Amino acid sequence: MNSSGNVTDTTHPVVQAPMAGVQNSTLAIAVCNSGGLGSLPCAMLTPEQTVDELTTLTAATSNPYNVNFFCHQQPVIDAQHYSQWLKLLRPYVAELAFDLPDEPPVEGGRQPFSHAMADSIESFKPPVISFHFGLPEKDLIKRVKSWGSSIWSSATTVDEAKWLAANGADVIIAQGYEAGGHRGMFLTDDLTTQSGTMALLPQIVHSVDIPVIAAGGIASAQSAEAAILLGAAATQSGTCYLRCDEANTSDLHRMALKDAAQYQHTAVTNVFTGRPARGIVNRLIREIGPIAAHAPAFPLASLAVTTLRAKAEAQGSTDFSPLWCGQNASGCEDVSAATMTQRLAGV
Amino acid sequence: MNSSGNVTDTTHPVVQAPMAGVQNSTLAIAVCNSGGLGSLPCAMLTPEQTVDELTTLTAATSNPYNVNFFCHQQPVIDAQHYSQWLKLLRPYVAELAFDLPDEPPVEGGRQPFSHAMADSIESFKPPVISFHFGLPEKDLIKRVKSWGSSIWSSATTVDEAKWLAANGADVIIAQGYEAGGHRGMFLTDDLTTQSGTMALLPQIVHSVDIPVIAAGGIASAQSAEAAILLGAAATQSGTCYLRCDEANTSDLHRMALKDAAQYQHTAVTNVFTGRPARGIVNRLIREIGPIAAHAPAFPLASLAVTTLRAKAEAQGSTDFSPLWCGQNASGCEDVSAATMTQRLAGV
Repeated sequence: MNSSGNVTDTTHPVVQAPMAGVQNSTLAIAVCNSGGLGSLPCAMLTPEQTVDELTTLTAATSNPYNVNFFCHQQPVIDAQHYSQWLKLLRPYVAELAFDLPDEPPVEGGRQPFSHAMADSIESFKPPVISFHFGLPEKDLIKRVKSWGSSIWSSATTVDEAKWLAANGADVIIAQGYEAGGHRGMFLTDDLTTQSGTMALLPQIVHSVDIPVIAAGGIASAQSAEAAILLGAAATQSGTCYLRCDEANTSDLHRMALKDAAQYQHTAVTNVFTGRPARGIVNRLIREIGPIAAHAPAFPLASLAVTTLRAKAEAQGSTDFSPLWCGQNASGCEDVSAATMTQRLAGV
Repeated sequence: MNSSGNVTDTTHPVVQAPMAGVQNSTLAIAVCNSGGLGSLPCAMLTPEQTVDELTTLTAATSNPYNVNFFCHQQPVIDAQHYSQWLKLLRPYVAELAFDLPDEPPVEGGRQPFSHAMADSIESFKPPVISFHFGLPEKDLIKRVKSWGSSIWSSATTVDEAKWLAANGADVIIAQGYEAGGHRGMFLTDDLTTQSGTMALLPQIVHSVDIPVIAAGGIASAQSAEAAILLGAAATQSGTCYLRCDEANTSDLHRMALKDAAQYQHTAVTNVFTGRPARGIVNRLIREIGPIAAHAPAFPLASLAVTTLRAKAEAQGSTDFSPLWCGQNASGCEDVSAATMTQRLAGV
């Protein structure tokens, strides 16, 4: 039913998941040059920074690559709701002896894909453009399609997969419940709809007639092979690459990823950004989460927490850090991204 | 690392999951006689009923079979907590025009495995005895081991797998988050610890040196093969068998299992029994769940809800029915259990 072909146009059907905040073009280049599809996360970059990164990337590899954007709606902040959120954070602010403004932020952190961004990247005509949280407006889709770019997006339910296939996606990433980082969910905010990869992947494969890439819990050549058996055209792994030499993962985050007692307990939480995302359970998740009713809408929750995090990390604490991680960190190792890509490819 | 061998001692490495309430020896016999391992759920049976069922089963098949018991602690009921629970249910009781006693139940529904039960089944020396919610007391384990029975139990985390291997289990069932029915969790009640099969299975396989059976989302020969690739010695499927001719699944439950809009949305809920279990999202889950703080401890929550359910089902409604179902009901079909077993075995 699915025309898999060589969906990634790479030597190995291995995609390095875009991971904003812990990697840049360095990791993507290493993956591209070792036969996988490297990804550049652009959600936290300005158009200028994106151009810089793409310039670096395209100078270092002639292989296909993926640029990733978010396509959320920018929220309108509710001042009263925000004050409830600050009330939750004040004890931590006091503990770390700094201060937070009472005023809610106007915008923050992550920008959705826009025509301004499209203007900036147009000359690169990226081979693959992947989106998280659905797809951008139709005119933007039409525009990037005109470049010949392949459009990918994540589905966390069968309904989302069908919607993406009907609305312009060329490839679907079936994001199982195991996956680290932000859930791509966009037709629902009900976490009970989120399925494990073993259940989600074959049901999506049977529901759409475009290629499906498996994500969530893929941490070895065996799990990649298992996903292919279930109909995946390729697999996407993120967590596996977090301890690679070319990632920017902080030392504190890397230490958590070496400690089974920590990495074997993750949770889907909204306390870091306002949207559900999977990370290692730490103090903030434990004390006000995993799902905090008063977390401001994505991405505005991240602003105050980012300050908290910086103060705590300066003292060597990960109490307030988003330690993004999937449910299978057993494949993480201090190796090069080339070694990891080959390991996932089983070569 | 794992000595898989032929852990089920059957033609196919396919286990039919024990499903109390929707099957008896008829389904188990059909599976046993078609080359899989049939299971007899005994948690809701008296010792006398269990003997009757085992007599029927052993007269109809000479192949190995599994008997399943729960091994929870019987709870002490908190009258005040229970009155809060009744307050939640009263509107439904009024709607269905009947009445519930104010007094909390003293016991109910499901009994843990006991010496009285062991007395009853001793002469059968069941080839496999599987437990849910950990393991029974050491003297009970010693007793059933003396019969030559293989002891199996479910693990939902790596910690639980290690505990089971250290405390007398011969085989571990890695129960992924996708699985329908009761979560086997026993070292924690924190649902964030529950992993998808793709992540849980290989991590358990690498953590213990006894055979591991995969459960959760296994709905086809392909998914069974994928689980074997990930190190499983066999696979266990429950949901797949729910629409089989030999199951006792109610017509209302079967109808829900034919409707993708229903079966593609399940949730882990405690509103039916007091313990987290996965079923199709219906009115009771939606309105007071999925996790109700005032649900009485397992199994006492089931008593009042069972009455509600009976009244509603008599009117053709599944509003209050536990429609147990995993996250992958796509393999369900109105076929014989022999056909389903062969399908899962890929023959």
